[in-house]
Amino acid sequence: VQTAWEQITPEWLFLGSFLAVILIGTIGLRFVPFFYADERAPLGLVDALFTATSAVCVTGLIVVDTATYFSVWGKLWLLALIQVGGLGIITFTTFLIAAMGGRPSLRQEAITSGSREAVQNINYRGLARHVILFTLLFEAAGFVLLSAIWVLQWALSEGGTLGGDTPVGFWEVLGHAAFHSVSAFCNAGFSTFSDSVIRFQNWPLTLGCLMSLIVVGGLGFLTLEELYMSFKARRAGRGYRMSLHSKVVLGMTALLLLGAWPAFAALEWGNSLSGMPAWAKLVNAMFMGVTPRTAGFNNINYVQATVGSNFLTILLMFIGGAPGSTAGGLKVTTVALPALMAWSRIRGRQVTGLLKRTVPEETIQRAVGLVVLGFALVTGCILLIVISEGSSPERFLDYMFEAVSAFDTVGLSRDTTPGLSVFAKLATIVLMFLGRVGLPTVASALTVAAYRPMGEFRYAQEDVVIG
Amino acid sequence: VQTAWEQITPEWLFLGSFLAVILIGTIGLRFVPFFYADERAPLGLVDALFTATSAVCVTGLIVVDTATYFSVWGKLWLLALIQVGGLGIITFTTFLIAAMGGRPSLRQEAITSGSREAVQNINYRGLARHVILFTLLFEAAGFVLLSAIWVLQWALSEGGTLGGDTPVGFWEVLGHAAFHSVSAFCNAGFSTFSDSVIRFQNWPLTLGCLMSLIVVGGLGFLTLEELYMSFKARRAGRGYRMSLHSKVVLGMTALLLLGAWPAFAALEWGNSLSGMPAWAKLVNAMFMGVTPRTAGFNNINYVQATVGSNFLTILLMFIGGAPGSTAGGLKVTTVALPALMAWSRIRGRQVTGLLKRTVPEETIQRAVGLVVLGFALVTGCILLIVISEGSSPERFLDYMFEAVSAFDTVGLSRDTTPGLSVFAKLATIVLMFLGRVGLPTVASALTVAAYRPMGEFRYAQEDVVIG
Ligand SMILES: [K+]
Ligand SMILES: [K+]
Repeated sequence: VQTAWEQITPEWLFLGSFLAVILIGTIGLRFVPFFYADERAPLGLVDALFTATSAVCVTGLIVVDTATYFSVWGKLWLLALIQVGGLGIITFTTFLIAAMGGRPSLRQEAITSGSREAVQNINYRGLARHVILFTLLFEAAGFVLLSAIWVLQWALSEGGTLGGDTPVGFWEVLGHAAFHSVSAFCNAGFSTFSDSVIRFQNWPLTLGCLMSLIVVGGLGFLTLEELYMSFKARRAGRGYRMSLHSKVVLGMTALLLLGAWPAFAALEWGNSLSGMPAWAKLVNAMFMGVTPRTAGFNNINYVQATVGSNFLTILLMFIGGAPGSTAGGLKVTTVALPALMAWSRIRGRQVTGLLKRTVPEETIQRAVGLVVLGFALVTGCILLIVISEGSSPERFLDYMFEAVSAFDTVGLSRDTTPGLSVFAKLATIVLMFLGRVGLPTVASALTVAAYRPMGEFRYAQEDVVIG
Repeated sequence: VQTAWEQITPEWLFLGSFLAVILIGTIGLRFVPFFYADERAPLGLVDALFTATSAVCVTGLIVVDTATYFSVWGKLWLLALIQVGGLGIITFTTFLIAAMGGRPSLRQEAITSGSREAVQNINYRGLARHVILFTLLFEAAGFVLLSAIWVLQWALSEGGTLGGDTPVGFWEVLGHAAFHSVSAFCNAGFSTFSDSVIRFQNWPLTLGCLMSLIVVGGLGFLTLEELYMSFKARRAGRGYRMSLHSKVVLGMTALLLLGAWPAFAALEWGNSLSGMPAWAKLVNAMFMGVTPRTAGFNNINYVQATVGSNFLTILLMFIGGAPGSTAGGLKVTTVALPALMAWSRIRGRQVTGLLKRTVPEETIQRAVGLVVLGFALVTGCILLIVISEGSSPERFLDYMFEAVSAFDTVGLSRDTTPGLSVFAKLATIVLMFLGRVGLPTVASALTVAAYRPMGEFRYAQEDVVIG
């Protein structure tokens, strides 16, 4: 006999737990006065809900300045929401992928042996523990590195400052380091500095450390596990055949980063990066390519960046990171597969091959479904926001940027968020939740449906003319 | 033995003939002084190329005011280019569809009988004659109707004017009517009035006549032929089973028009339509829904319309009309099929069914290929244009509107075209050509590839995780 608890599907558990955490976060922000800095009134209900959703969905859009508006306790509360949200998303998605037989090595077996069944022999408790340990390990490593860099810089600075003008204490430096290592690995984008990471434009080690955390967080547990296994095998002199999934994730990540880097360097060289030495321009252009996927720290002010950079950032935000990671967006694999299929068809191929493997049509069709859904949601929401925000064609780019940033849980903004109407804030809240929780849920539900026995009634075929 | 002429594929013939006509049009505009009104210098090379491409590709984007810049001879030259372009596109695409066995009734047979071969027994000469006759018939009907309305209004007006303030002669009225009936049916969007059709805001018969020509031109020959056959059968008391293709075309057209109408009415009621009587608001809102697919006449100034209306117009422009018609855009069927597949997958279905028919997966995949290609081209071109036009975030909407209007050969503009840089003009020329000639060519080439015997080498399957 199944208890009610056992009847809950993982998808509903995921949706429900995220809603519950957001609710708890909202109540805390609304009703606990000592979460706020002196002379700051607690946030209203909509702003509290917005901030809690942004933290739990690791988005990073903010209606008030995190650095000055919250007390230490408030910042700890946000950090807790981010950590729970980040761990929740990576655990849930990894768990679902594994349960679906999507854990690359297992899935491969299931497919080559012709079985359409989900693989059932996953050690769930072991997997969850692994994911949590691995997250904490990377965050700890990030904390140690950032602390080392920042304490050193702080000790060497005149008056004990950290980038800015105001002197800070030793423990404060460690607090900043802890907050930023968690926020970077979880791709959360919240910062305890008013200017995000703009103050670190000339600190290459800091930017490098943050970029590493962001990229590693956005690769996902399964791919990192495979990288580790591949490293171990190579050291032992053995071969290791990486799964197609991890190859696509690594390839797309490399492609997007290496493509974005020179583009941002060229677009911003004489603009928002001007006045820096050439090496700093290169590091900051690289950071501009890393942060849209989907960290949301900003090392420059996007209002001052060129329209080209802003548009390119929108495209990168829309794509996002890997499934089973802390990154948001449509996901690199979801975008790669339809593009790959298009390319195959344009070359007259009837099967979609990649790296000497055939990608199942059914998976590509699910990817198309997700892209269509994501595109429809973002487009609909842009329409709602521009309608609600009135007739101001000059601000169209701002709203488009904001909606994509919300749906793909990036958190970059053209300083638009605080000025949004209540309606637009509510639309943004829904968009953040749908992007972070809704999309993986739909992806998972689609995958489950794909494993149903094939016995569907089919009507006679009839073609439609396209083009 | 095949002669060189016989070896030319229909696609190359299509590309080559459009290039040739554009070249002839450019030479005429560049070097014939009496094409221009008194005191007007002939266009420079880039502007002449732009205008010729816009006319032959029935786009309607203009760098100079057609009404005042050209002489009667110049207007006749443009009209000839439009007529050749419009006839060329409708003949070529209908011919290709038919040759591919895509003529709905024939294709259906080929599929249900299991044959993958292209149907060969098309009477090409007969088909081309039919298409041309049918085009001229509708244009003639439009000319008669428009002339009747306009001559009457002109005769009744004080001082013999046609909407505007300047008196016009009888033959001039007929000239306007001829130009507009061809331009409307060909979805060309060129107008011999400086304000396009804004002057007809309170002339419901004129707007209705133009809307009918636009919609009929955008449905395509095959669907109109089926409508006629269905009408004949019903009159004879027989049944007629319309092809799935025509049902999709008619359904999507109705859906888009009926969806856009109330949306534009709501968005513009108190804005660019204010000051009109309610019936005129309704007629003009309907015209706003018709013109983006893909006529390009404007009955209001899009600069004064709300951002919401502009964004909605961009979406409608991107979708466009039916294949095998004078309309541009990605085409209603090409957009409908991936959306339909997404919907099927989200509901857990493994086959894409519609109106008691199964749509072949391969066709949907080609549609995805075309959408991906179109989206990539437009996105890339928006990026190029915003980069070339410099750092002006306020004008992002203008450039996005312009690029979509060019690629989907609509011709609406937020008064952006004349001010474009030479680079942006060249990019727009390429975009118009690719949208009008490139997309059907790729669609046709894809369809040909799909009929190749299946004997492709397949690698082992391996799955990729999405979402
Ligand atoms: K983020
Ligand atoms: K047009």
